[in-house]
Amino acid sequence: MSEPLNIALAGLGTVGSGVVRLIETNADLIARRARRPIRIAAVSARDRTKDRGVDLSRYQWLDDPAEMALRPDIDVVVEMVGGSDGPALALARNAIAGGKALVTANKAMIAHHGLELAAAAENAGVALKFEAAVAGGIPVIKGLSEGAAANAIERVYGILNGTCNYILTTMEASGRDFADVLADAQRLGYAEADPTFDVEGVDAAHKLSILAAIAFGARLRFDAVETTGITGVLAADIAQARALGYVIRLIGTAEIDHTDNAALFQRVRPHLVPCDHPLASVDGATNAVVAEGNFMGRLLFQGAGAGDGPTASAVVADLIDIARGEKGAAFSMPSHELEALPPAQSGHRTGRAYIRFIVPDRPGVLAEITAAMRDAGVSIESFIQKGRGEADGEVIVALVTHEGPESAVSEALRILEGSDSLASPPLVMQIIA
Amino acid sequence: MSEPLNIALAGLGTVGSGVVRLIETNADLIARRARRPIRIAAVSARDRTKDRGVDLSRYQWLDDPAEMALRPDIDVVVEMVGGSDGPALALARNAIAGGKALVTANKAMIAHHGLELAAAAENAGVALKFEAAVAGGIPVIKGLSEGAAANAIERVYGILNGTCNYILTTMEASGRDFADVLADAQRLGYAEADPTFDVEGVDAAHKLSILAAIAFGARLRFDAVETTGITGVLAADIAQARALGYVIRLIGTAEIDHTDNAALFQRVRPHLVPCDHPLASVDGATNAVVAEGNFMGRLLFQGAGAGDGPTASAVVADLIDIARGEKGAAFSMPSHELEALPPAQSGHRTGRAYIRFIVPDRPGVLAEITAAMRDAGVSIESFIQKGRGEADGEVIVALVTHEGPESAVSEALRILEGSDSLASPPLVMQIIA
Repeated sequence: MSEPLNIALAGLGTVGSGVVRLIETNADLIARRARRPIRIAAVSARDRTKDRGVDLSRYQWLDDPAEMALRPDIDVVVEMVGGSDGPALALARNAIAGGKALVTANKAMIAHHGLELAAAAENAGVALKFEAAVAGGIPVIKGLSEGAAANAIERVYGILNGTCNYILTTMEASGRDFADVLADAQRLGYAEADPTFDVEGVDAAHKLSILAAIAFGARLRFDAVETTGITGVLAADIAQARALGYVIRLIGTAEIDHTDNAALFQRVRPHLVPCDHPLASVDGATNAVVAEGNFMGRLLFQGAGAGDGPTASAVVADLIDIARGEKGAAFSMPSHELEALPPAQSGHRTGRAYIRFIVPDRPGVLAEITAAMRDAGVSIESFIQKGRGEADGEVIVALVTHEGPESAVSEALRILEGSDSLASPPLVMQIIA
Repeated sequence: MSEPLNIALAGLGTVGSGVVRLIETNADLIARRARRPIRIAAVSARDRTKDRGVDLSRYQWLDDPAEMALRPDIDVVVEMVGGSDGPALALARNAIAGGKALVTANKAMIAHHGLELAAAAENAGVALKFEAAVAGGIPVIKGLSEGAAANAIERVYGILNGTCNYILTTMEASGRDFADVLADAQRLGYAEADPTFDVEGVDAAHKLSILAAIAFGARLRFDAVETTGITGVLAADIAQARALGYVIRLIGTAEIDHTDNAALFQRVRPHLVPCDHPLASVDGATNAVVAEGNFMGRLLFQGAGAGDGPTASAVVADLIDIARGEKGAAFSMPSHELEALPPAQSGHRTGRAYIRFIVPDRPGVLAEITAAMRDAGVSIESFIQKGRGEADGEVIVALVTHEGPESAVSEALRILEGSDSLASPPLVMQIIA
């Protein structure tokens, strides 16, 4: 057995404590699989006295995590501080500059600074790994960058946020509305006190931008992800989708648009998913990612998207790879070879869509909506008018379009914009094919 | 860009031709991801003149694949000859002895000779890789040995044979019987002219034994897989399972039995799968593998289990790993460290089971069956008597047991053995929890 791999852990929240517990529990197994022990050489967190459910007294405590970058007895810094900038980013930069490999679960930092860190890691000749940053315990970064490496990836999409999926599937099962289910989820610990990053789709967008960079060999463009969260989804939408044979899921989807020059399409938005699609049965906080390749066909990875155990599993898988001597490029190829692709115009895309209006309950409204659809060239497949809206005198009207360009749907909504036939802005959800 | 990785392909059937087509189609992408080109240095097959849909004239043709092991300009031999012994095994041994890495899609050879070949590869300091041997295009070997490496795996199970899954799901959709659907599958090319290895569960057992060795760090024991195929499954079984809320799938399952000393449980058998379980929606020739780990929880991999494209995708993923310098142990740890576990006694296991009898249509038969269940301590949850059997004067009786030891079910069947109340031996299928 060779020398141990010496690691330092910065941040001892849920995930950090989980990593300590995993390394202690599975130590023998890890040493056999990694061909060397993984040893915790130092730990650091804000509060030394907090009870974390693991005994930290046997590990050296550092008050300042910046020390990790300087100590010769540390091979890998594991950043679990969190936050896209600030102390996490400073630590990551220092660790790499100090010649340490960096492992992180920090999707926000990778989405914002992943390219800079990857270039720094390449210059320093150290590994930068972040399996835990996307889809928790699911080895989807490895799956894409190694398992699917022989393929031109045509599309990658999936359920990337467990909080949203928990809320949507609970709304589905209970018939309750968003705000109500969110409040429960917060009480139960499935949603943060400030749920904005989750429910507005930002967290899913972080993850999608990382997956897209790896899948397509493209420079990471978090800023170019079209992002709509689930706050606008009504219980009525879920009921109407169900009646048409669909469920609603927050889906992040990315592909290369070849309409003109290659462009990168990235979108996070609630979608309608046919009930017989593998993503339709993904319930609760589970995550799932589908990748479609030109030889392998459709590949699905599914598992726990969050939680201390699954996230620690992904962090330690990265550590085992490093212990085995793996130093592959963070985004599957060196960062200077990643293509700089412009964002795709979504109007080029074709597909079917669900459009829901809240309208005043008076004659002429349907005629105005259908006329706008006709004038914009949107062909309507089915039309549902159901029940009352949230306010008195309002009704909910939903329709599903035939296959057609998204630009036509946008044009129809532009025609209707400002009309007093609409009580509030319409909600558009694409239907996953 | 470094020197190319020079490979030689032995066997140019569907998969071999697919590998050539993939390497040609995705050459640039592969070179970027592998950090060096993958170059086909030589090919070999039985018949040089056969039209394989790819242009082989640009590659050096070897009449005798044994030459591959001797040529200094070859780094990797890709064995796609097939068969557990004979020319495939001779080539594999020679290639490794000659210092070449070996990549193979040959599950039969790995199931029978994988330990010998792994030890030889370790001695020679070369890679032995066989991602394509299990579940076609799904990177499940990588997923288990690297992605899930931080976990003690508690159970691994899945749908490992596309032919059986195609037949069972077609029986399910059409209500037709096994022999009828098999004949169609043969006409359509979904089943071999001699389908024995597939429908008797041998192919799934090959794959399961490979997965179990990797998941549990155990010496591969193909001989110890309890194997029952799908030839005994009637359309009536599928209908009755459906009425109870289940579908029938051929499942391979492996886990460590800790009843006495650690023992390896491996079984391939048709199972009842609850309709809301992720494996229930796996249709057609799709494969899916579930791994349960002590930190990651339940992980699912799903995709195309066969076909030239998906299988070639897995073969070339192995080649890219080798091009990147990966030389990991074939079974995740060195072969001499794999534990020699005895086969587990299935009687120790507890669970619910479906038992189906074909019985003469006369009074007293049900009393005899239920008395045997009572005497053996089997508790019956539900009992269905439905329709006629295949022969005149026979009826089909099925029951589902409560949770209980498998030994009790075996004892009940032993009591009934030879009774003239049974027109043919009963069929037992476990219910997946």
